[in-house]
Amino acid sequence: MPQFLSTTDPDFETRFAAVLTMKREDSPDVDDIVAGIIADVRARGDAAVLELTAKFDRLDLTPETMRFSDDEIAGYCAQVSPADKAALELAAERIRAYHVRQMPDNALWTDPDGATLGWRWSAVSAAGLYVPGGVASYPSSVLMNAIPAKVAGVPRLCITVPTPDGVVNPLVLMAARIAGVDEIYRIGGAQAIAALAYGTKTIPPVDKITGPGNAFVAAAKRRVFGKVGIDMIAGPSEILVIADKHNDPDWIAVDLLSQAEHDESAQAILITDDAKFAQSVTAAVEKRLETLERRKIAGKSWEEFGVVITTRDLDEAARLSDRFAPEHLELCVEDPDALSAKVTHAGAIFLGAFTPEAIGDYVGGPNHVLPTARSARFSSGLSVLDFLKRTTLAKMSPAALAAIGPAAVRLATSESLEAHGLSVQARLDRLNEGGNE
Amino acid sequence: MPQFLSTTDPDFETRFAAVLTMKREDSPDVDDIVAGIIADVRARGDAAVLELTAKFDRLDLTPETMRFSDDEIAGYCAQVSPADKAALELAAERIRAYHVRQMPDNALWTDPDGATLGWRWSAVSAAGLYVPGGVASYPSSVLMNAIPAKVAGVPRLCITVPTPDGVVNPLVLMAARIAGVDEIYRIGGAQAIAALAYGTKTIPPVDKITGPGNAFVAAAKRRVFGKVGIDMIAGPSEILVIADKHNDPDWIAVDLLSQAEHDESAQAILITDDAKFAQSVTAAVEKRLETLERRKIAGKSWEEFGVVITTRDLDEAARLSDRFAPEHLELCVEDPDALSAKVTHAGAIFLGAFTPEAIGDYVGGPNHVLPTARSARFSSGLSVLDFLKRTTLAKMSPAALAAIGPAAVRLATSESLEAHGLSVQARLDRLNEGGNE
Repeated sequence: MPQFLSTTDPDFETRFAAVLTMKREDSPDVDDIVAGIIADVRARGDAAVLELTAKFDRLDLTPETMRFSDDEIAGYCAQVSPADKAALELAAERIRAYHVRQMPDNALWTDPDGATLGWRWSAVSAAGLYVPGGVASYPSSVLMNAIPAKVAGVPRLCITVPTPDGVVNPLVLMAARIAGVDEIYRIGGAQAIAALAYGTKTIPPVDKITGPGNAFVAAAKRRVFGKVGIDMIAGPSEILVIADKHNDPDWIAVDLLSQAEHDESAQAILITDDAKFAQSVTAAVEKRLETLERRKIAGKSWEEFGVVITTRDLDEAARLSDRFAPEHLELCVEDPDALSAKVTHAGAIFLGAFTPEAIGDYVGGPNHVLPTARSARFSSGLSVLDFLKRTTLAKMSPAALAAIGPAAVRLATSESLEAHGLSVQARLDRLNEGGNE
Repeated sequence: MPQFLSTTDPDFETRFAAVLTMKREDSPDVDDIVAGIIADVRARGDAAVLELTAKFDRLDLTPETMRFSDDEIAGYCAQVSPADKAALELAAERIRAYHVRQMPDNALWTDPDGATLGWRWSAVSAAGLYVPGGVASYPSSVLMNAIPAKVAGVPRLCITVPTPDGVVNPLVLMAARIAGVDEIYRIGGAQAIAALAYGTKTIPPVDKITGPGNAFVAAAKRRVFGKVGIDMIAGPSEILVIADKHNDPDWIAVDLLSQAEHDESAQAILITDDAKFAQSVTAAVEKRLETLERRKIAGKSWEEFGVVITTRDLDEAARLSDRFAPEHLELCVEDPDALSAKVTHAGAIFLGAFTPEAIGDYVGGPNHVLPTARSARFSSGLSVLDFLKRTTLAKMSPAALAAIGPAAVRLATSESLEAHGLSVQARLDRLNEGGNE
């Protein structure tokens, strides 16, 4: 059974605080192993990657076969059913349409002092996307990572996806092709992250690495951070549903289970202002769990980490949600827009009973790579900005330097940085001589 | 002497590659010590912070005196000269005017399928800025960190600044007051980072920590990352100046020295298309070094890490600069705008001979917290975005769900995520019954 809390319980604050700090993930400490793998790939390049792939994926590759050829990709893509292909294309189109709107503007202006200021955005030169192998090899994640990169204008975009025992997921290759990925390597684990970050003879290095992975991949991403950029280190997924009594309990139940089925460490939370409705949803979850394919995973997540909270009203529900700062927030209430306006901290909000979170996982348009473990308090989901960087621009006219330069000299002096001041003063002296005005 | 390279040298590529991978920083490994400090502050809160402050800063505080009172701040601010105060105010005003323009827009639209999509930005609830104590206690950095946070709308902004032996820099408090900082604590080191991240009885926790610091502070920021957001971990500063022969060699010399004087690990690079001009600048650097207050630091940096490169033309200079991806790039050439358009990777560009980099350190307007160590390939300087996060919004009309829901079900099925598909299908079934259309 999940935990049941009510804001009218005398011990509510204590129990809610415990929910907020609940530890759901016990990452094995693989940091030493990963450090060794990275050092090996840096030292021996392709040879190390090939050996590690043989060892972990039971797959013998050569530098020539490390990368999927165009013919191979075409061959695998031909195995994808027209209906699956159409679904991927619809998803890709909607994701692209959403992310195109995120492209930020450059700016350049001249202020009253005569200083021309601004900034411009540019894409990273090369990005690498990590795609897990095996059961968690999700074509939807390929779209969600690759499309923002291509919208941002990344000229070289490559994927690494392990193919243990040589088993390939054709949908992953199809998603990559639809998204415009340039290179696909059949390698994985920490060795793939090391190859992307430092490069090998076969794999040129990239500047940014994104995408989910297991504990080895996460540890490797942490270690190469600084040498390259990385996206977030994602934890297990979570959903918080705020629902009033006017909902079909079964809809809310499957919504909760759609997070719970991801992972035994996933978390599904229901907040409602109606205690009876809470019971109905709980019963509906139990019923669905009887037949659900992934009932073992979903059941364990629901039992260990599921939480049902009854509040006095929906405003109280919004305040609790903000303290949780959920990755996914569903607002299944009569006026979801009004309630949404009361929420500040959430990765993504799904408004109204006809917007199940799973729509956002695939075809909604917004990105499904979102901040977990309360990090929506300070971070955002993946976007085109993750593949862009900003260069600031400043150009002083002689008049502008004359106007603001003396303040710079003053501050440099106060910070005992003499050369800073001299670099400005040398110009001011010339201007005072009248030589360049 | 700095290194001299010419692109016409037969071994240029080898030597330039060595410059790119030059290791300038040997951070002591303080990670174990820092882990202990963080654990101690988590366990014992204020008591641990006070003990560590007594030990490292030789300063006995109580929970009551950990924070500067308003009266104390006013007292220290009264010690600041009117000229210094005016310079700080001019700087603050210009930094604010620049960063206000960075505020991103919210968006909300309805697409042809009937899906209402968008996003909205919100500020983190609380941010903490670390300000180093002692010689590197720069009031300009207080402005550069605090103003973007306040422009972003951070309601609670606090500073930690150590005051070893009780020595306070009045300019830091004045800068904090001008920038609108809400709380100032006289603590520092890893214990300050731990207190900001986890909170103590006296210091409520924050959601985001920014600001520079020594090896202990950097290690602590790495460790609390995930619990809170952090800005970049900055390395030693660097400047790359592209200058043609029409410049005053002395101006370029002081510009190079204004980076070199920061730190023995700082790096100053000159690229010019004129070998004779390169010699003139080098001679001017030597001359300035004879009298410069910080000649020991600047001289060591120039000798160990200074590089002078002669190119065939300015286009070649721009290409080399892009491979370096400098933190600061000065373009002292006849047409700096044209050359700037050929540059992709740089933290900040300073255009024309009247824009010495030091202007940007203080009063230009753009932020002086910039990506070092070639990380401008994939990251940006500090901005209001560092204190904001984005929540994505999605709302499906029944018609929108009917249009795109089947594709979501198809993809969920292909990923073996049954509950994901069921959560959409349950709604589609109702729509097919005609019950909610």
